[in-house]
Amino acid sequence: MNNQPTIILVEPQLAENVGMATRAMMNCGLYDLRLVNPREDHLSAKAISASSGAEEILHNAKIYKTTQEAVADMQKVYATTARPRNQIKIVHTAENAAKEITKDIKDNINVGILFGPERTGLHNDDISLADAIIEIPLNPKHCSLNLSQAVLLVGYEWYKNQINAEDVRFVTNTTTLANKEMVLNFVRHLEQELSEHPGFKDEEKRPHMERNLQNIFTRNNLTEQEINTLYGIIKYLKNK
Amino acid sequence: MNNQPTIILVEPQLAENVGMATRAMMNCGLYDLRLVNPREDHLSAKAISASSGAEEILHNAKIYKTTQEAVADMQKVYATTARPRNQIKIVHTAENAAKEITKDIKDNINVGILFGPERTGLHNDDISLADAIIEIPLNPKHCSLNLSQAVLLVGYEWYKNQINAEDVRFVTNTTTLANKEMVLNFVRHLEQELSEHPGFKDEEKRPHMERNLQNIFTRNNLTEQEINTLYGIIKYLKNK
Repeated sequence: MNNQPTIILVEPQLAENVGMATRAMMNCGLYDLRLVNPREDHLSAKAISASSGAEEILHNAKIYKTTQEAVADMQKVYATTARPRNQIKIVHTAENAAKEITKDIKDNINVGILFGPERTGLHNDDISLADAIIEIPLNPKHCSLNLSQAVLLVGYEWYKNQINAEDVRFVTNTTTLANKEMVLNFVRHLEQELSEHPGFKDEEKRPHMERNLQNIFTRNNLTEQEINTLYGIIKYLKNK
Repeated sequence: MNNQPTIILVEPQLAENVGMATRAMMNCGLYDLRLVNPREDHLSAKAISASSGAEEILHNAKIYKTTQEAVADMQKVYATTARPRNQIKIVHTAENAAKEITKDIKDNINVGILFGPERTGLHNDDISLADAIIEIPLNPKHCSLNLSQAVLLVGYEWYKNQINAEDVRFVTNTTTLANKEMVLNFVRHLEQELSEHPGFKDEEKRPHMERNLQNIFTRNNLTEQEINTLYGIIKYLKNK
């Protein structure tokens, strides 16, 4: 039993690609790697260098002779393919597969994800071992990905389900968002300084100008620090 | 005005990385590239080879001396950073930024997305040119991405908003999902063939066995072709 899906690279050709795939795995918090009949040594200097800090994944990788052996203890297997071929099979987007896998893992199900060799992708025989297919939605005119990028996209979708990233947030560092009193005091102060400006002297134009200023300075989420900066600017301009 | 965001690579160091970034762009249906002060020739053999079929993007790329010049005609600019630094700024996840950018483009707004140099990421001066920051949620212990992977993840999120991929679908190729009559007829046929089996002869066990068989053969979405295959198997086994 495992708390995350196992990445299974079937017959990867280049050790460098295996290394890059482990880098992508670590980017996404995935640590469990299996290799089926890799052509090159996954612990070669090239592989270690390409793993770029993720070499523990290479060292812990388990090696199998066949895909069947690699999935023997798995309870659910997903196969990634650029385009599902002649198979009668359920096809998930990477996004939806990630949700399913997250649920599977919560149900204590052992999940493996198959990735095929660089040039050909997975053989039909290996795809037929899988419960379902993962398809990454990409430009159909140019959907070939290198191995590490396929691992990255599937892993990224999985990782998004493990964390609760805020869609959007406002970073203010040491300062905080100014309250409305502070913003409006500043706008009033600016208006006072502009009282001799033609737009403010004209009683008809004045309300329009005031609304304009209010819009300008309430639309951009000013922080307390930024308002102080603006006061300083007005002071400086006055004395210039 | 543009129907997609412009990818702006600021001071990319290696031509190969620029090439790989264009491959990722094309994967995601993005074609508009700008380069700010690239260190190497973006039309070198290395770049073309790494672009892996996306060389038209390299040929059409526009070159600028400064980031300010590259964003001059943009109306909204997003800056990608591994971790937002000392800036008072709105931070979107890649997923949310993609939704925002899709809306921006519908509103005929020119959008640019800045990516920094490989080693350092964007300078604070360049980040301050942006309306908002895009942060890709990744394992905080290992969040460094190479340039093309950052472009791929942001582009992928954008592309997902351009298409309406079905979350999950069932691919049956030339055959179709069997209807319930066909499935149940098959189960009844199998039961008949098994009428001498101890589990079916025992009147008490029989309903349980029948439910079991019905579960087995209704849970896996059998197609018409597959049911015919199963009839054939029974026939063969009988005559063995």
